[in-house]
Amino acid sequence: MTDLELVLASGSPRRQELLSRLDVYPLVEPADIDETPAPGEQADAYVERLAREKAAASARPGRVVLAADTSVVLDGVILGKPTDPADAAAMLRSLANRRHDVMTGVAVAVTQADGTTMVHSAVETAAVEIGELSDERIGWYAASGEPDDKAGAYGLQGAAGIFADRVNGSVTNVIGLPLPLVDELFARHGLDLLAFRSAPPLDPVRAIAELALDHVTNPPRNDDRVVDWGSPEDLLADLAATIGTGFATEEPAAAAGDLVNAAERVIARSVHTNHPRFVNQNYAGADPLAVVGDWLGAALNTAHTTFEIAPVFMLMERALLDKMARLVGWDPDPKQPAGLLCAGGSIAGMHGLQLARAARDPASINRGHDGTPLRLLVSTSAHYSTAKLAAVMGFGRDAVEAIATTPDGAMDMDALDAALGDGPEVLAIVATAGTTVTGAFDPLDEIAARCSEHGIWMHVDGAFGCAALFSERQRWRCRGIDRADSVAWNLHKIGGVTQQCSVLLTKDASRLDPTFASGADYLFQADKLFGEYDTGDQNIHCGRRNDVLKTWLMWKGRGDAGMAHRVDHAVALADHVRARVTERDDLAPIVAGDFVTSTCLWVPPQMRPLNLGSLSAEEHAALHAIAPAAKARMQAEGSALIGYQPVHGINCFRLIFMNPEVSFNDADRMLDLIAEHSEAAWRLAQ
Amino acid sequence: MTDLELVLASGSPRRQELLSRLDVYPLVEPADIDETPAPGEQADAYVERLAREKAAASARPGRVVLAADTSVVLDGVILGKPTDPADAAAMLRSLANRRHDVMTGVAVAVTQADGTTMVHSAVETAAVEIGELSDERIGWYAASGEPDDKAGAYGLQGAAGIFADRVNGSVTNVIGLPLPLVDELFARHGLDLLAFRSAPPLDPVRAIAELALDHVTNPPRNDDRVVDWGSPEDLLADLAATIGTGFATEEPAAAAGDLVNAAERVIARSVHTNHPRFVNQNYAGADPLAVVGDWLGAALNTAHTTFEIAPVFMLMERALLDKMARLVGWDPDPKQPAGLLCAGGSIAGMHGLQLARAARDPASINRGHDGTPLRLLVSTSAHYSTAKLAAVMGFGRDAVEAIATTPDGAMDMDALDAALGDGPEVLAIVATAGTTVTGAFDPLDEIAARCSEHGIWMHVDGAFGCAALFSERQRWRCRGIDRADSVAWNLHKIGGVTQQCSVLLTKDASRLDPTFASGADYLFQADKLFGEYDTGDQNIHCGRRNDVLKTWLMWKGRGDAGMAHRVDHAVALADHVRARVTERDDLAPIVAGDFVTSTCLWVPPQMRPLNLGSLSAEEHAALHAIAPAAKARMQAEGSALIGYQPVHGINCFRLIFMNPEVSFNDADRMLDLIAEHSEAAWRLAQ
Repeated sequence: MTDLELVLASGSPRRQELLSRLDVYPLVEPADIDETPAPGEQADAYVERLAREKAAASARPGRVVLAADTSVVLDGVILGKPTDPADAAAMLRSLANRRHDVMTGVAVAVTQADGTTMVHSAVETAAVEIGELSDERIGWYAASGEPDDKAGAYGLQGAAGIFADRVNGSVTNVIGLPLPLVDELFARHGLDLLAFRSAPPLDPVRAIAELALDHVTNPPRNDDRVVDWGSPEDLLADLAATIGTGFATEEPAAAAGDLVNAAERVIARSVHTNHPRFVNQNYAGADPLAVVGDWLGAALNTAHTTFEIAPVFMLMERALLDKMARLVGWDPDPKQPAGLLCAGGSIAGMHGLQLARAARDPASINRGHDGTPLRLLVSTSAHYSTAKLAAVMGFGRDAVEAIATTPDGAMDMDALDAALGDGPEVLAIVATAGTTVTGAFDPLDEIAARCSEHGIWMHVDGAFGCAALFSERQRWRCRGIDRADSVAWNLHKIGGVTQQCSVLLTKDASRLDPTFASGADYLFQADKLFGEYDTGDQNIHCGRRNDVLKTWLMWKGRGDAGMAHRVDHAVALADHVRARVTERDDLAPIVAGDFVTSTCLWVPPQMRPLNLGSLSAEEHAALHAIAPAAKARMQAEGSALIGYQPVHGINCFRLIFMNPEVSFNDADRMLDLIAEHSEAAWRLAQ
Repeated sequence: MTDLELVLASGSPRRQELLSRLDVYPLVEPADIDETPAPGEQADAYVERLAREKAAASARPGRVVLAADTSVVLDGVILGKPTDPADAAAMLRSLANRRHDVMTGVAVAVTQADGTTMVHSAVETAAVEIGELSDERIGWYAASGEPDDKAGAYGLQGAAGIFADRVNGSVTNVIGLPLPLVDELFARHGLDLLAFRSAPPLDPVRAIAELALDHVTNPPRNDDRVVDWGSPEDLLADLAATIGTGFATEEPAAAAGDLVNAAERVIARSVHTNHPRFVNQNYAGADPLAVVGDWLGAALNTAHTTFEIAPVFMLMERALLDKMARLVGWDPDPKQPAGLLCAGGSIAGMHGLQLARAARDPASINRGHDGTPLRLLVSTSAHYSTAKLAAVMGFGRDAVEAIATTPDGAMDMDALDAALGDGPEVLAIVATAGTTVTGAFDPLDEIAARCSEHGIWMHVDGAFGCAALFSERQRWRCRGIDRADSVAWNLHKIGGVTQQCSVLLTKDASRLDPTFASGADYLFQADKLFGEYDTGDQNIHCGRRNDVLKTWLMWKGRGDAGMAHRVDHAVALADHVRARVTERDDLAPIVAGDFVTSTCLWVPPQMRPLNLGSLSAEEHAALHAIAPAAKARMQAEGSALIGYQPVHGINCFRLIFMNPEVSFNDADRMLDLIAEHSEAAWRLAQ
């Protein structure tokens, strides 16, 4: 360690690179001196004088200044840097089939506190032999750009290695800074060059970007942990070792190293949703192209509001919505976006229901809900967001009427007909394409017939299941969706986009403007250019985050076939699991699950084969308690993260396949883990 | 060009690096052969035999296989790779103060279509001289990790350059692959090594990540264009040169190079909101730490719903909300998040108004809005989102009553008192802290007094202006905010976070659960671990994007002082502009603007000094038309992006300062641009 500050009086990136090999990172302060050779000055005297002058120019009390000057010398003549490719070619021609010298003058100046400066300097010379050089080779190298900033028009450390390779002397000298000589000059000052070693300068922005990229390009696999599970106290203590989670009354700026360490801890203690054994949620394994598309959107950081500030993205959103509307089976108007990207599936649903309200009663936009009882029909297996929306939209939760389902979880048409025949006016039927728990699809075509007959708005919550439309082999599940008035579809689920990309599509997109527009004149100015491309006023957001770029890039990169593969592979995995569950006598389904979802539970030996109706209340309770306990064991081990939830009153594991990186082996391994840990949990509870 | 496939039968990253200097990127296929020396085998014979055997192992029809083996030879004895640091130290000790040889055997095998293989091979030898090596140096280098995978325990191209630098012979031979010899062996086959050059293998994920990082770390400055403005047709044509914006009925997967080119075009044609001369919007210049924090959140890609899947982020959100609630002046309950992060300011406002509705009438959650007339009071200068929310929440737009403002844009208390004295019940007063157009602050303390007196919910829309709370010198603007019931605050505006980070804070956070919870049993299972930390049920979203990590990282990295600096610098810039506008006789304010906002317009010579009341209708119209025309000129030139909007009926430029990288020179330059382009536009219109 030393208190002196090390300065490199040279802007050469090669000299910095040579020092960095030793973990030495000086302050770089290029010297600006007259480099004209003195009349009759010999090359070795010249490079040493320049090195000394450069060092002197940066000398200050408390500093060690390292300076160097390198020349290529042929027959005693100094070759400078080439002026252009032709000059480079001429220099190379003169060097071919010859030996020349490379000389580096090195000076090290140390300035004491009182201002006195001591300089030690020396010259290192090496011979370089260049072989035969064809005109073709000379032309290639001269045009490569490499010669441009290099004395003698070549760099030993680059492509010139194919012809300029034979050295007699110090290799680092030829590159521009003879490290052994630098070491020796430091020693003459009584200094150890290696005492100036330090950690590389840390740019937390680059370092955190690298960590993020590594997580995406080298995702965890196989026996890597899905999660390093901890209690809130564990996690708080872990982060406290770097910078602590909470904010003090006067929070100081964290050191760069602490910040990067904190980012590493965040990664380590987060759930690795890109691990093939994360099947816990209806998203997993975002496509790396979507991730970096998301990054580019964040780097460009604009609000998705007007053409003026998001010109490319307004056009991309139109293109994406157009494609999706066509997949639904509509024929969208090219002059109007076929919907919008929303901040999440619930907000997409809100737009659908508000379109429904405005379509039924345009005056309600200004007047408000007048208390007329209106019903929103959903199935008992539908997502809970409709009830939340009913509350916040002023319909009230009681307006939501839950229609019974078949045992598999699809809306029961007899129950729907009964509901339609009795009760207040129905504003909308919210049909589910892909239920959360079992992946069931409501019979959209039959629901559409009822809506058509009764003049009811049909909204499809296809947040999860509209992904079936990507695949020719799966799209039958959505038959009738083209008859819907509005559709919500989350591409951040099976679509493989990062959180979030929620899309609301509507068949008659001309309704968006009258339903939502406020016409703020400070933003949607009538007199500005291409304002007709603005979308900010067609929704309840103002600025939206850029969710389209990532989606567009991924879809373009994978093509329709890549999107279809995501779905087909996921269904194949779920089919495989359903088959295995049937084959195994230790596992059973309550409901097998549909589409990319499979559910099962482990059955204690004395309850096999499982017959729910024959269980005692105690057995029922014991069976219900197994999945939570088994899951906690898997979490603690980090071996897999698999969701569970009640199916007909019994906690079942639910494997939802999303991530194309999940293999059939992963699926089998997860069934084994369910069995092992369920059995262990059950034995402990006995 | 050649049809033969080039294979490198070696896993050595150094050999790949040497070839990449020539733009040669072979297929890498390490050979697995027995490397035991034959009894009595000389070193040169040994390395040549191994190279030939490796080449033969990978030979196939249509291939050129390049193989090599390098040995360090001291007194005729081959030194292998060290087994551990002690072994490395022993080898280095034996090499010190000596010359040794480095020998590389190289073999090139070419296999014809008929399977016949021809191999050419040779050995290159160089002498390396190592100097004096102290025990300390040996210890340092042996422990550095560098010797581990290297024959002779050192690498010429690394830190060993300080002692192992003096070479007589081919430098690339010492590194592991003598390029001139490789070139010669190819020539013996009648092949040109350089014919195997290609573009480096392109990983679009890494390439797009690099583009994004470069945009953040090398942001545009000064005379760089803020925007390369184009019409929709221009932009579509520009992208069509790569992969086209729209999606075909059967969209193919794009080639990697096209995808990266498209990303480059997207950057080029997007608005550069990180340019210091982008003052068009109430966000600009996101902090690079926030950008990479955003990236890390996207890489980890989880939904912000439950502790189970977002453990670290649930804790961070609590910490962030706690800090912000304390800045508002509250004393938050450590057991309950003080609000939530929402997808945008409008959605934050929606949560505030729903809390107000539920507080007044808890039964309305289930029953719905019963048609009772309720008013929402906002100022005429307030953000338009309240009207949008009133429509979608079932209050109706007519429920929103706009209270007049003072000329500066702050709510007029006399007008508020008049409104309170007459009309239906007021559900909430939405006070604005920082209006969109002029940056005015409603008198929060006085509004709080009215709310308290009348029992009205007080919501503060501080999306823009709550940033004043960061700074001791600016927080007076928000005096009284601690008396509010709910506050919306966007950190993606002056806070410098990327789109989006919208925060809803509420004084009594225990209201969140009864107002919003639905209790879905498949997600918020009662029997899971630490479910009390779940927040997904306390809002109208289900999954939310991770908006907290980026915010947390940035705030931790900059500290409170860094957040305060953002605001103080922005106010100083706006003060500077307001002073300059007053000094210049060609510019005038209609309303000067407050906080970080300054507004002005250019005044034609014959209208100076400006007196709006004395203008004719024609003059008024001409003046109003200047800003749009001047702005279009600046857009076309790309020199600046500055918003305009009507202030008291006349279009004025609005400079909102957000980005700490904006200098006073940038501000002056933008005023000059306004004057130049306004004058030019006005002259053209005459």
